Amino acid sequence: MRCGIKRARKDLAIVYTPHLASAAGVFTTNAVKAAPILLAQKRLREGVLKGIVINSGNANALTGARGLLDAELMASRAARTLGEDPATFIPASTGIIGRPLPMRNIIFGISVAAAKLASTREAATSAARAILTTDTVTKEVAGHVKLRDGTAVTLGGMAKGSGMIAPQLRGLHATTLCFVTTDAAIPHEALQGMLERAADATFNMVSIDGDQSTNDLIVVLANGQARNDPEVADGRFEAALTEALAILARKIAQDGEGATKLLEVEVRGAEDVQQAREAARAVVSSNLVKAALFGRDPNFGRIAAALGYSGSKLAPDRLTLRLIADGGSVLLVKWGEPRAYRGTVAHKRAHELLRSKEIRIVADLGVGKAVATAWGCDLSYEYVRINAEYTT
Amino acid sequence: MRCGIKRARKDLAIVYTPHLASAAGVFTTNAVKAAPILLAQKRLREGVLKGIVINSGNANALTGARGLLDAELMASRAARTLGEDPATFIPASTGIIGRPLPMRNIIFGISVAAAKLASTREAATSAARAILTTDTVTKEVAGHVKLRDGTAVTLGGMAKGSGMIAPQLRGLHATTLCFVTTDAAIPHEALQGMLERAADATFNMVSIDGDQSTNDLIVVLANGQARNDPEVADGRFEAALTEALAILARKIAQDGEGATKLLEVEVRGAEDVQQAREAARAVVSSNLVKAALFGRDPNFGRIAAALGYSGSKLAPDRLTLRLIADGGSVLLVKWGEPRAYRGTVAHKRAHELLRSKEIRIVADLGVGKAVATAWGCDLSYEYVRINAEYTT
Repeated sequence: MRCGIKRARKDLAIVYTPHLASAAGVFTTNAVKAAPILLAQKRLREGVLKGIVINSGNANALTGARGLLDAELMASRAARTLGEDPATFIPASTGIIGRPLPMRNIIFGISVAAAKLASTREAATSAARAILTTDTVTKEVAGHVKLRDGTAVTLGGMAKGSGMIAPQLRGLHATTLCFVTTDAAIPHEALQGMLERAADATFNMVSIDGDQSTNDLIVVLANGQARNDPEVADGRFEAALTEALAILARKIAQDGEGATKLLEVEVRGAEDVQQAREAARAVVSSNLVKAALFGRDPNFGRIAAALGYSGSKLAPDRLTLRLIADGGSVLLVKWGEPRAYRGTVAHKRAHELLRSKEIRIVADLGVGKAVATAWGCDLSYEYVRINAEYTT
Repeated sequence: MRCGIKRARKDLAIVYTPHLASAAGVFTTNAVKAAPILLAQKRLREGVLKGIVINSGNANALTGARGLLDAELMASRAARTLGEDPATFIPASTGIIGRPLPMRNIIFGISVAAAKLASTREAATSAARAILTTDTVTKEVAGHVKLRDGTAVTLGGMAKGSGMIAPQLRGLHATTLCFVTTDAAIPHEALQGMLERAADATFNMVSIDGDQSTNDLIVVLANGQARNDPEVADGRFEAALTEALAILARKIAQDGEGATKLLEVEVRGAEDVQQAREAARAVVSSNLVKAALFGRDPNFGRIAAALGYSGSKLAPDRLTLRLIADGGSVLLVKWGEPRAYRGTVAHKRAHELLRSKEIRIVADLGVGKAVATAWGCDLSYEYVRINAEYTT
């Protein structure tokens, strides 16, 4: 619903399960944590939740002691309105930093949202809309997965995030917000482990601008209504959760502030996964690579430089870079030798491929077998406009 | 002189001393190192040099085995033209990555430049111009310092760098190029130590775009003609060298690609100098802070977020942020409480101060006594234009 924090768009949502759910969360590692993050971290320690109340337009960050009281009041008001124990609700906020939450709007919003709760697709999309800030589209995902014991479980997720995106979410210690709900029965510890591994491979591999927020979080609620055997450790659920987060992470990169193109970078041949991840993140985070992408310039020099300063080990004389887009691929660098410098056919071809909205770069570092993928976007005039004019 | 690598501007310079000079160097830590860097690192191990031949317009990076031969030929041609041993010359290059050096132009350029060598101010400024790429102005510094034994020595320096600037220069292992010459007599080891400490406090604290180049280097030549006592370890020379590098580093930040403003961030109250440096670098490197600066938005939330993800320890409830420009200062955040949010007099005042071309932010982290300063610039439409259209 719209409670008036944002000028003209929806800004408040409640996610609720009447059945106590096993819960897992990962949070921003920023030393400046918003009040709702501090409260959610504390409550997640119990490992169970019934609901989340989320507002956009105001991050309740850098708001001191008052911010903490406001976060508590927001959660407890939502819980009580639904006849639940306040300890089973957490708040989540995103938007401008450094301004007190407008609690009158929030309280009014909670009463309206609580009355409109529904398990419909429309309600889900409404919620996905209410959590957006500079996002231009909603990010949703849903699917079924059959567990090893034969039970079919459902998994649904929504996320927001467009700027101040470079999450580094760590267990009980990532401003993208992401909420996943499932009817699977999974004990808290198992769920927390799955979420941490999935976040490392997905959300933690997205960078829009290299700026890590004070409010990032992912929360998963598993309310057990599918009645699968919770004692069977099941790789299928983790695979489905990872896939769902990967889809949402990609959508966030695609909708990066001012983005005209999605950039997917796959690093191969790294010494280990951590190095592969650092190398892939360095390329999607490079302003020079991002500006080149915006200008449709197949600038392998900037890609090589970013790989080089990533801290990952690489063999310059075995470095291979390939550009892939719909319609084909071009070898930019092969075994350290540039192939696509200006004036070559390869350069012309690469320039053409860069018309595509989805660009994939495959980099082989030539020192090992580890692989990782990162997602980002180009750096456009529009990014500068948004962030020079908007107070986050 | 102009040898034709760049379309219409000077692109080749020689720095030469007929007296064998004690030499020190720091180089990019990028794993993808340009050919001239690899050669210079090797030759600097001897600790003595007579000259440097420098071209702009082509970085001789990602050029394989041919690049190494070209770098050697460039240095030896310059040395032989001046009747010197090739082992006493190093090359330095900056410009486009991934294209072979146009050796005919280089060889022609060396013969002309060698004939024009002069110890005049005009020659120095000509050289400072020849090493530029997207820079809009030359960066020079010169001065005298009286050593403890009474000898007055002279120190002169030139630098270039506008984009792909986030140097992390390490001893014998930093595309900003910087060349310092002095007539002081300082043994190689002492000079190397002084340069490493000075680079850490100055060039390594500059970030234009967070992209570390394949070609960064600083080289100091001390030819001893002032005839001071080289055995007197002298803090005055190190102080003068550090001051000279700080002036050049600041000029580089001020001339960042597309920059309309210089940003100087001083972090105080950090636990140790390393943390203070990381925190200051995080703020000047933040795209969101940079875009806000371009938009004259005193966005303390983005500054706090950057400090928070820097990895430095900080006390959110003691965090204090002050904005300083010509004409005054405004407290943005005091002891964790925002003072300058939209609608306040402080916000209006801060917005006015942001008209200045030189902005200083002082951040107190509230956990210790360590201090550090970093330099950067704003993120403008022009930055995007330059890097979407220019092939580095």
